[in-house]
Amino acid sequence: MRNVAVIGAGMTRFGKYLDRSMKDLGREAVEGAEKAAGVAHKDIEAAVVGNSMAGIVTGQESIRGQVILREMGFGDIPIVNTENACASSATAFHIGWLYVASGMYDCVLTLGVEKLYHEDKKVSYAAIGSAVDVEAMREAARKAKEAADRAATESRQVGEGAGEKRSMFMDFYAAGARNHMKKYGTTKEQFAKVAVKNHLHGSLNPHAQYQDTCSLEDVLMSPLVVEPLTRLMCSPIGDGAAAAIICSEEKARQFTANPIWVKASVLTSGMDLQPGDDPAATRASQRAYEIAGVTPRDLDVLEVHDASAPAEIMIYEEIGLCPEGEGGRLIDEGATQLGGKQPVNTSGGLLAKGHPVGATGVAQIAEVYWQLKGEAGDRQVEGAKVGLTENGGGAVRGEPAAMSVHILST
Amino acid sequence: MRNVAVIGAGMTRFGKYLDRSMKDLGREAVEGAEKAAGVAHKDIEAAVVGNSMAGIVTGQESIRGQVILREMGFGDIPIVNTENACASSATAFHIGWLYVASGMYDCVLTLGVEKLYHEDKKVSYAAIGSAVDVEAMREAARKAKEAADRAATESRQVGEGAGEKRSMFMDFYAAGARNHMKKYGTTKEQFAKVAVKNHLHGSLNPHAQYQDTCSLEDVLMSPLVVEPLTRLMCSPIGDGAAAAIICSEEKARQFTANPIWVKASVLTSGMDLQPGDDPAATRASQRAYEIAGVTPRDLDVLEVHDASAPAEIMIYEEIGLCPEGEGGRLIDEGATQLGGKQPVNTSGGLLAKGHPVGATGVAQIAEVYWQLKGEAGDRQVEGAKVGLTENGGGAVRGEPAAMSVHILST
Repeated sequence: MRNVAVIGAGMTRFGKYLDRSMKDLGREAVEGAEKAAGVAHKDIEAAVVGNSMAGIVTGQESIRGQVILREMGFGDIPIVNTENACASSATAFHIGWLYVASGMYDCVLTLGVEKLYHEDKKVSYAAIGSAVDVEAMREAARKAKEAADRAATESRQVGEGAGEKRSMFMDFYAAGARNHMKKYGTTKEQFAKVAVKNHLHGSLNPHAQYQDTCSLEDVLMSPLVVEPLTRLMCSPIGDGAAAAIICSEEKARQFTANPIWVKASVLTSGMDLQPGDDPAATRASQRAYEIAGVTPRDLDVLEVHDASAPAEIMIYEEIGLCPEGEGGRLIDEGATQLGGKQPVNTSGGLLAKGHPVGATGVAQIAEVYWQLKGEAGDRQVEGAKVGLTENGGGAVRGEPAAMSVHILST
Repeated sequence: MRNVAVIGAGMTRFGKYLDRSMKDLGREAVEGAEKAAGVAHKDIEAAVVGNSMAGIVTGQESIRGQVILREMGFGDIPIVNTENACASSATAFHIGWLYVASGMYDCVLTLGVEKLYHEDKKVSYAAIGSAVDVEAMREAARKAKEAADRAATESRQVGEGAGEKRSMFMDFYAAGARNHMKKYGTTKEQFAKVAVKNHLHGSLNPHAQYQDTCSLEDVLMSPLVVEPLTRLMCSPIGDGAAAAIICSEEKARQFTANPIWVKASVLTSGMDLQPGDDPAATRASQRAYEIAGVTPRDLDVLEVHDASAPAEIMIYEEIGLCPEGEGGRLIDEGATQLGGKQPVNTSGGLLAKGHPVGATGVAQIAEVYWQLKGEAGDRQVEGAKVGLTENGGGAVRGEPAAMSVHILST
């Protein structure tokens, strides 16, 4: 495989854009990446576009990337549309990397884009609900309803979230968090500290959906979603797009003296994990460390999949930033905050930067790229040389349906 | 790039399966391919799954492949979900080929699967309508309706098909057919002969949706869809799945003495074609001939994208089976019929085998694979050594949004 570089990134601010189309969001991200890289449409030989839920939200399936890129004036390049739930555009980036690493193309555009907001909130939740086994979930909901009818109670059921009142993903995360509390003594305050940290980081990022800081009390007192998760511990619904341009070494040298290298591109899944098995993030990150020839200690900056605040603490452990059960200590020590030893989610993460599902993977790449280029403004990690992104997608039986880890370096 | 082989294929019969899920259809195809190849789940290192419209038809987006493969007992392999309208699984096959050709994996499963039938036919048409620019189409429909309201007429508009009465694709095909008739004197009878041929071929294929032969009169007298297309000249709505297993040369040798080689895997698009430019199928096939080191004359068997009967005649010309304008002559001579010089769509093609959008690409590969293996039963082309598949997907401004050509050989 050849050396592969990122030479430019662009993204929209994430947020609520009822009046903007996927075309409009995609265009802003792609133009931003092209401008940053100094490339024109004609330099781009292929494009890989990640989106997860437009079929449900906008009715546009099948040729999502073409619809965006044709409008921008792209010609007869091959376009691959990828889907992998929250890891849709990490998957797009992985395929783009493969196109270049294999020697097939020298310059590839990768784009992640998502519109989740819909005037009818039920549509947004149905879309998010498509990231699990829909058939199994409907069946579970039907059974839960029957049981509830029998008991004549109003207790909440797992199935309730499936396309109705909210995403069922927070139920998964809450269960994992309660388990972590029980097993390791992790506290709700420690989870809240993750949210405080990521909102602080988000306040320094002009692309973040939420740019207000919040206090520990704000997080703990925000409405309860499901114990122990409060609203500020959950990533929001959002719209947005992010793009990155990937080149061979030779091509990259034509555009920049300082490309950022993709040292490892790993895609896997967490299906069929047995009790005692390493989590998907552990397996994917270990493989990435091996390929890149680095250890967790070498990482200067990380973007990880904090779809909920407790998830970030568990990811610390899963990817080897600390031993199992010590994620709470890490947040207490401030190690993962800007100014700490290994800042995590300097962008604000999914919690504050936002989480337009199909855009998240490339947005993580963009943040690490900017950090390694020294272009991260007020949130810059001085002298950052090696960065990691971790991006999980969807769930089959409670485990990630897709798991992607990338390692980038100067 | 390394040599890449296909070592097994499987598919469901295409048809109307209101009572079967994507899981069920996918399982049959994957198990068939595994059995044919002699491989087990554990041999498969990655999977690429093409589907185009499940988000709209079933509500399952995001992790379509995982939902099917997890149920079958696949473990933590990476799964990439691809979408490219009617070329969704040709794209999956292309990415699977790239995984192996690049040296990344030695054994990859590719699957195409689609459910289009829905109890509410409007849902099926909305799904098919997702293979064009949905936003532009809604705008066109709105304008058309305004114009119609003003004129107080009931004339049919392009937009009418968008998710309402039928697929608008037949309007595109009909316009192309009328143009061909005008320019080259091609006749409606010649188009009808394609349908007769492909239904004859389908009658010999146990996987075909339609297994009845039909006469020229049957085709010409079947209900008019839009001039010159009659119903029997249009591919049907259908459900189904097809799978193929791709290996490195070394791995293939462990399972078979006679692998079928993938000599070229080309994916492109036809966006932004200017008047006088070569069609996308011409460009893709010329590139494939160049990579494979063959000419159109070397092809013993072909599967092409006959979504309508006239399309097949135009594809003859576009991929170089005959000079421009002479496609009608080719069908008159019987050159592309079983027993002729270069049989086309021995499976029955999209017209008779059926066209479950996301399953079509790999189903074409399966047919050519079986032909080259000498396993095509009553429809066997004796001594076939080189085959081609041509698979177009979606439309942006009337040109293919995706175009894929593969060349396989013994």
